[in-house]
Formats: sequence, structure tokens, C-alpha cells
Amino acid sequence: MKIRSAAPCSVWVRGGRHGSGPRCTNSSCKCVARSSGYWPLARNNSCAAGSLGAYNHVVPTRGDAEARSIIFFEQCVAERLVSMQFYDFRLAPSPTKVRIFLAEKNLEIPTVIVNLRKFEQQSAEFLAKVPSATLPALELDDGTVLVESHAICRYFEELHPEPNLMGEGAKEQALVLMWHDMATLEGYLGIQEVYRNGQEYFKGRALAGPQGYEQIEALVDRGRKRVEVFFDKLDRRLGESPYVALDRFTYADIAAYVYQGFAKRAVGTDPAGGRDNLTRWSEMIAARPAVNTATS
Amino acid sequence: MKIRSAAPCSVWVRGGRHGSGPRCTNSSCKCVARSSGYWPLARNNSCAAGSLGAYNHVVPTRGDAEARSIIFFEQCVAERLVSMQFYDFRLAPSPTKVRIFLAEKNLEIPTVIVNLRKFEQQSAEFLAKVPSATLPALELDDGTVLVESHAICRYFEELHPEPNLMGEGAKEQALVLMWHDMATLEGYLGIQEVYRNGQEYFKGRALAGPQGYEQIEALVDRGRKRVEVFFDKLDRRLGESPYVALDRFTYADIAAYVYQGFAKRAVGTDPAGGRDNLTRWSEMIAARPAVNTATS
Repeated sequence: MKIRSAAPCSVWVRGGRHGSGPRCTNSSCKCVARSSGYWPLARNNSCAAGSLGAYNHVVPTRGDAEARSIIFFEQCVAERLVSMQFYDFRLAPSPTKVRIFLAEKNLEIPTVIVNLRKFEQQSAEFLAKVPSATLPALELDDGTVLVESHAICRYFEELHPEPNLMGEGAKEQALVLMWHDMATLEGYLGIQEVYRNGQEYFKGRALAGPQGYEQIEALVDRGRKRVEVFFDKLDRRLGESPYVALDRFTYADIAAYVYQGFAKRAVGTDPAGGRDNLTRWSEMIAARPAVNTATS
Repeated sequence: MKIRSAAPCSVWVRGGRHGSGPRCTNSSCKCVARSSGYWPLARNNSCAAGSLGAYNHVVPTRGDAEARSIIFFEQCVAERLVSMQFYDFRLAPSPTKVRIFLAEKNLEIPTVIVNLRKFEQQSAEFLAKVPSATLPALELDDGTVLVESHAICRYFEELHPEPNLMGEGAKEQALVLMWHDMATLEGYLGIQEVYRNGQEYFKGRALAGPQGYEQIEALVDRGRKRVEVFFDKLDRRLGESPYVALDRFTYADIAAYVYQGFAKRAVGTDPAGGRDNLTRWSEMIAARPAVNTATS
């Protein structure tokens, strides 16, 4: 596992509104000085004070700038000059939501893989950093560790508001949050009941976290029922609306899509089977380049 | 139950930054014309275009203006001229979160009581409006119905950002959301396991909503353990921080405080007992005038 050190560029954006080349963004704005050791600064490198989004170090777009910039970024990671760390495991549903969110925002974050299959989340080293023993986790430049996928996504939504994924204005934001919460509390929790109470692998660990909880067999059946009820509800909703919360793609679609994939694996049933609206929507989401990048 | 009709003043604010008298706010800005039938308009009545917060109809502060304004507001409700409706039940924990949130923001919303003890949430009339059969619910001027307490609070946070209760900037917002989600997923769900699986009253209704779910006895014990684990965690946190998420009162405190009160009633144990930090914080929250208003 890489260890954080005080450092410059936390988040990289490929392209964007303020320039077509890749940019590194850093709220503490020290990237320019640091980057000079690796790559000569271009004339248009600048750090403007103002909103968080304005702390951009613009990389010139000439020739192979993007390629060089990526090399620079990789050097930063190798040299441990990048302080923000995303703790991820590709097979787990919650970090997958964040991965899709980041890909939709065109952000790349230095990532550390914590192998849940090898119980690395229970290691002393990880627990010292993330006492909840859960993924995803995001370690910020100042050492603050965020857990809970929704909180991590909200962090990036505020820092990088484009493209908007959590709604604009009061009503949109409420609808995205409402559908996210229903998908999580009704769908995801039902899937987890089936998944963690029915498999030998989760014996004594029927709930995520550092505490042991025994399996409860009756939750497997209850979970199956909840899963059907939720995906029926989602199918009805998708008969009225092209996307889950709004008439465009949002974080609610990310959550519901990840839960649908998780249900296939964890419950052994494909929610889209026999649900036409869900099938249409699911194919549409799967075809998004960012979703493909983040889940393949 | 009152039926919504197209109408003027949705949200009333007593006092506020732009005037010390009570104000009615309405995003569609028709309140002035309507109100003239009830109360002569004052010279400083005005509707300014711009941000949502600017659509204010300022009531003069002379003499008994506040009293008259309240009478006018009550007339609006009686005449069904107020379209936004909040569906509430004072004994339930989730709507209590919204009530505290509104009181902290100094907002008054026309409210309809749905008596859960009389199963009014399962009535055909309520289900037609709120198919999830859950409280709280908020019906907007355009007929949209929001459920999920967090989504409803977010709606008001956007419309009435002062005082800030969900964090300012990326990190604060993420921390409030993180602590809210942990309190809900770890604390509240544990309490619900004890509450709904152990009482005769909830037979066949072990989960909220229109579907029937049988009780599972083993969840009572599991829930008790989860409750202890969560309130231990909260107590540790409150040893490091004066409030749950930030160094000031936020929505995360509202959620945790309501869950603590719910645990007393539902689990029969006082989480503050023997937890010094939780006791200190709990007394501090209980002493807030808005909390007192919303919970007494």
C-alpha cells in the first residue's frame, strides 16, 4: 500500500471547459512548483484564486502534451507526490459506484487496491487508516479519510461540478437523493441480505465492518423478496422516466445500475429479465463509455 | 386530509436576513395577488426575480404585523391556498428529523398529520399520493411528491441555505453526508431491527412500506448489538469533535439525536447512559430552541 506524503496534484482531468488538454487540479495550488521538476512549465501554466474549480494548472495542448502529462502524472504517483488516495476493490459494488462517478467526471485519482478476498480491509495497517474496515475510502490531502460511497461522490461533485451528476437546483437534487436512497435502502440492502447470509464465505461476517455478526438464514428469503419488490418498482419508474431520477443520467442511475449488476452476481437472478423498461435502461447505461471503462 | 390546489405562499419564514418581520416565500411568486384578498399589501411588498431565495414577499414589521401575518397564513391554509404540504407524524423518527431541520431554518410548512397508529399511511387516499406508504413526504407546488427525509431536507437546504446545515464546500458536505449515512445505516437500521421484529404490533410488517414482511426473531438480538456498536462509535467521535460531523451543528447531529431518542423508546436503553461524550452532546442538542420546538 502506498503511503501518503505531502504533495501536489491530487486530481487530474483530461480535457475540460478551460482547455482541451489534460489538467491537474489541486486545491492547495502547489502543483506548479512541484511539477517543474518533471516537466518544464508552459507559458499558460497559471493558478487563479477563486472558486475551487479555478485552482487549475493548465497543461498546454501542443502535440504530445497529453501523453507527456500522463507520464508526469505517473511519475508523481511513483514518487509518492500525489497525496489523495482512493481505496478500491473492483469486484465490490460500493467502490464501483465511485469509479463510475469519477469516470463520468473524467477524473483520475491515485488508487490503492485493497483486496477484500484476502481480508486486507482487516489488516492493522488499513484499520489504522479506515477503522470502519469498509470500501471505498478516500484519503484527502490533509489526512482526512472519507468513507461511504455517497459522501465520496458528493466531495467530487462539489470540486468538479461538470458534468452535473447530483441534480441542479432544489428539486433535482432532492429527486436524485430520493432515488439513490430508495435504491440503497430497498434494493441494495435486500441484495446484501441474500448475499451475506447465504454463503459459507461470510460466516460470522454477515454485516460489513470490523465486528462479527452471525448469519441469519431467514434473511436470505426476505432479501430475495425485497430484491423483487425493488426492481419491480424501478421498472415501473423507468416506464415513466428515461433515467432513474431525472430525464438525464445522474448518480441515481449509477447506484441502481451497480446494484442491478450486484444482484446478478449475489442473488443469482438478472433483474432485467422480464422487465422491459429496466432492460432498455440497463443497455443504455452499459453503453456509456465511462461505465464501460469503470466496470470492465 | 387537505387536498392541494394551485396556490400562493408555500413556505413562511419568521424574520430573516432581509427583514425582521415574517415573510412568505413562493417560487412561483403569485402570493402578492392572492394575499390582497386577505390583507392589504404594504408599501414594501415586492417580488424580485433572481435566485429562489429572492422571491420574497416581505411583510411590514409595524406593530402587530406578525400576528396579522400569521392569521393571514392560517387563512391561506384554511382556504386551501397553500399548495406545499408536509406529511408528518410526530412520534415517528424520520419526520422528526425534517421537523427539526425546518425549525432550525425557521421555516413553517403547511402540515398534514398521517396517523401511523391508525394505519392512515395504508389508506387508498394516501397511497395514491405516496405509494411507498412512508413518512415523511413532501408534496411540491407542481404535484411532485418527495419521500425520504434526507431528500426532503436537501430540498429545503437548497431553497433556504441559511443557516447552513449540510456543510459548505466539498469536504464539509462530504463529512456531513458520511456521518449521516453511518448513523442511518449502522444506528437507525439496528434500532429498527429491534423495534419492528420484537413487537406484536409489527407482526407481518417488519419493514416499513406497503409490502408485508414477517418478523425475524434473531434480528432483535442482532439489532441490540448494532445499536451498542454504533453509539460507542458516536461516543468516540464526540470525544474528538463537539458535534457529529463538523465543529458546528449540522444535519448529522439532527439524525444522530433523533436516533438516540428513538433508541430510548424502541430499544428500551438510553444510549447516553455511561457514555460521557454522548451525554454532553445530547444535552447541548436538546437545549437548542428549534429542537425543543420540533420535538415537544
